[in-house]
Amino acid sequence: MTPDEARSRFALARVARLATVDADGAPRIVPVTFALDGDRIITAIDAKPKREGPVRRLVNIRANPRVSLLVDEYDDDWARLWWARAEGVARIVEEGPDLGRAFGLLRQRYAQYATVALIGPAVVVDVERWLGWSAVAG
Amino acid sequence: MTPDEARSRFALARVARLATVDADGAPRIVPVTFALDGDRIITAIDAKPKREGPVRRLVNIRANPRVSLLVDEYDDDWARLWWARAEGVARIVEEGPDLGRAFGLLRQRYAQYATVALIGPAVVVDVERWLGWSAVAG
Repeated sequence: MTPDEARSRFALARVARLATVDADGAPRIVPVTFALDGDRIITAIDAKPKREGPVRRLVNIRANPRVSLLVDEYDDDWARLWWARAEGVARIVEEGPDLGRAFGLLRQRYAQYATVALIGPAVVVDVERWLGWSAVAG
Repeated sequence: MTPDEARSRFALARVARLATVDADGAPRIVPVTFALDGDRIITAIDAKPKREGPVRRLVNIRANPRVSLLVDEYDDDWARLWWARAEGVARIVEEGPDLGRAFGLLRQRYAQYATVALIGPAVVVDVERWLGWSAVAG
């Protein structure tokens, strides 16, 4: 799969999985809603209930900004399997026009954000590499 | 969600996402088929076409055995969202009875392995922590 096709397939998904790494080198995955802004992936902390304590993805990104995001669809017909992945560097946007833009892009994609509050901060990932795999196209 | 419930939900999924970390601290996610063996998660390299070059998840695990695996289901009704995660330490099983056991467990779960060859090695994750989140149960 070409990087362009990986990006296109990624863009259509409703959910991605975000991997971050903590200060001790342990990875952690969490599902995220997202929007694409060119070669940036936008996610944000919203008001969906969270586990207690600090939001670990933010703690991790502050310690190590390298992230990976995956989109995939499983099918028991393995000829239909594919995935698309973004690798890049994340930054946390706490305020200012970039935060407003991030919220705007997420609200455009998800009608749910009409009723679920976007709290922030946003996480903006500068994608350095798009890649993907598909069972059929090799 | 209790650790037991996270484990139970994880066990029912057909696909999980595996995050590993490379020697430079960059995370990488890939979808995997898996089987549970108590508090161990079994995956293996199979004959589904791979991207060229060495299998990166194995390179990463040799550099840093800490891994995270996620199961989740997306629904546009956000009251139905949930995820379950395993955090643990992976080891690579190249041969011997543990490899045969891993292949047997995978073949039990996936009829596809009657026609898709299991090549190996297997990756066996000793789960140290099960955790999960659900929109409804908090």
